[in-house]
Amino acid sequence: MTKKVAVILSGCGVYDGAEIHESVITLLRLDQRGAQVQCFAPNIAQLHVIDHLTGKEMPESRNVLVESARIARGEVKDIREAKAEDFDALIVPGGFGAAKNLSNFAVEGAECSVNADLLALAEAFAEACKPVGLICISPALAAKIYGPGVVCTIGKDAGTAAAVVKMGGTHEECDVHDIVEDVQRKLVTTPAYMEAKSISEAASGIYKLVDRVLELTHEKDQ
Amino acid sequence: MTKKVAVILSGCGVYDGAEIHESVITLLRLDQRGAQVQCFAPNIAQLHVIDHLTGKEMPESRNVLVESARIARGEVKDIREAKAEDFDALIVPGGFGAAKNLSNFAVEGAECSVNADLLALAEAFAEACKPVGLICISPALAAKIYGPGVVCTIGKDAGTAAAVVKMGGTHEECDVHDIVEDVQRKLVTTPAYMEAKSISEAASGIYKLVDRVLELTHEKDQ
Repeated sequence: MTKKVAVILSGCGVYDGAEIHESVITLLRLDQRGAQVQCFAPNIAQLHVIDHLTGKEMPESRNVLVESARIARGEVKDIREAKAEDFDALIVPGGFGAAKNLSNFAVEGAECSVNADLLALAEAFAEACKPVGLICISPALAAKIYGPGVVCTIGKDAGTAAAVVKMGGTHEECDVHDIVEDVQRKLVTTPAYMEAKSISEAASGIYKLVDRVLELTHEKDQ
Repeated sequence: MTKKVAVILSGCGVYDGAEIHESVITLLRLDQRGAQVQCFAPNIAQLHVIDHLTGKEMPESRNVLVESARIARGEVKDIREAKAEDFDALIVPGGFGAAKNLSNFAVEGAECSVNADLLALAEAFAEACKPVGLICISPALAAKIYGPGVVCTIGKDAGTAAAVVKMGGTHEECDVHDIVEDVQRKLVTTPAYMEAKSISEAASGIYKLVDRVLELTHEKDQ
């Protein structure tokens, strides 16, 4: 049976939105494995717009949903339309958008809050015991979704790992080619560009994450 | 020996720039095959900016090089810095950016002209008998680069094929999973999203194109 997966985008570009390589590799692997995908994004202004050539802020405003549509070739919906009951799994690629637009982790660190619509959606997946995949920096949101004790990885960066622990998460170091799984919560995480030195390194971990998330959709609820 | 490949981007988004999936899949495959990649883009304003959610034009201006940097994670240079002698092959992904920013094919059709810097660069690759890969709509530029008789594909769209023929090209219909090769000119083309109904379909043809372009870098000049 075709599995339905919701993918949450956070803009279009590593420094102010969804990491493009991670997002495309996620969509590619899901399609290669026969999953049916719907992208969603919050209909809000980006925290800011970064010139990806210079790294400097640009004096303009862009909308997260509209920019996410670039990655999704137009096929993206407002996250408010997403219902956990319509899907078998949820995946959130990384990029600073996850820490700037889906949450304010980039500014507030361990004191961050998560976009209310995303939080409600992710909590509904968790409550339904449906698998969730968080990529790159997105696992910084895990403790806010699952509460204390959730097991995840953001790779090996000590500062970010410390923030995850401060929020109540249990951090496991992880190689770029590998995944960490919280078996009880059906949460799968991989560092991708938190550790990757190349696009194929990022792909190796993301392929494993997507494959494992899809496997978990076949398991009976515990 | 590591092969060096120049990839030409034309913005960031299918409707006004480089097709993101095609670009990322090209970069992924090149990296998986051990090639060393440098992205380039023209430092010019986009023809226009399209809201990828609504398909409507937005009242703003964006720069092709700056937006291309989103796909390249900042690692993109002005196309004026590209020299054929520094590379073994050239690849141009598709998206409307190829027909709006790298040329004016979207507006002028068979009467189009190609960005002067790209044209000079591509002609230098052709003269050096170095392989070139053109993806999706980019083969519309082939006759401008190689002159009459060049063999290429834009898939099966009759109108676009007719424009290619009017420019002097020899068009071959091609399945999304396949490539067309002009053996004499070392030009490889594939339809990708001119025909693809899904990202994995686009990937299947692009993987073949990248693999064949890299193979051709090993051949002696004729």
